[in-house]
Amino acid sequence: MEKLPDLATLKYNEQGLIPAIAQQYDTGEVLMMAWMNQTSLAETLSTGVACYWSRSRNRFWRKGESSGQVQTVKAVRLDCDKDTLLLLVDQQGVACHTGRHNCFYLEAQDGSWKTITDPEIDPEELYGK
Amino acid sequence: MEKLPDLATLKYNEQGLIPAIAQQYDTGEVLMMAWMNQTSLAETLSTGVACYWSRSRNRFWRKGESSGQVQTVKAVRLDCDKDTLLLLVDQQGVACHTGRHNCFYLEAQDGSWKTITDPEIDPEELYGK
Repeated sequence: MEKLPDLATLKYNEQGLIPAIAQQYDTGEVLMMAWMNQTSLAETLSTGVACYWSRSRNRFWRKGESSGQVQTVKAVRLDCDKDTLLLLVDQQGVACHTGRHNCFYLEAQDGSWKTITDPEIDPEELYGK
Repeated sequence: MEKLPDLATLKYNEQGLIPAIAQQYDTGEVLMMAWMNQTSLAETLSTGVACYWSRSRNRFWRKGESSGQVQTVKAVRLDCDKDTLLLLVDQQGVACHTGRHNCFYLEAQDGSWKTITDPEIDPEELYGK
């Protein structure tokens, strides 16, 4: 296991979580934002594969475990306030559960939220029927 | 005032806040993450200049109001879960209060958090002595 940096000094919220932005390392595309706790961050740093904490399922979320769309982690960065992480990743396939490459596909335009990108993969193909 | 999209259906947290990632629109650099409430998001969309909610000062934070480092907003995007915003901005000067261009200047390397970028501007110059 790789030696870990100090993870206790990060500022986690009341639920023990810290937001983690995932950015495609070579294109700069912001893929998604999810949450980590200290244990999932330690696992991510140790394995080099992104592991989040799912707030809806209340358990570790090893990104890609059911869809195969894993994120290989190239770097883990921390901001000035130590309360936000930026992960530079290499996304296998697509990041979004809708089958889109990234999750930010709604854009404020002319008074509504317009869908600006289409799915690349059928979600049923990602998760099975 | 520009017509606003539906802001009530966004998923704000218990404090009425939603995280907003600011990304430089032309280079893809992730500059910072801050928080907005519905009112600051409405102001941002109306004025085209980023207005956040400061959790530490508990008031509106019109980015650049004291430093001059304003963010002109090119687009406001929302993710699939409607609980995270991505702002494509044109950052005047630097985004970070330390004088660095972006806030993510610490990187996990060899068991510690290494500083990977230097300030471009003396913070005292930004905020006065």
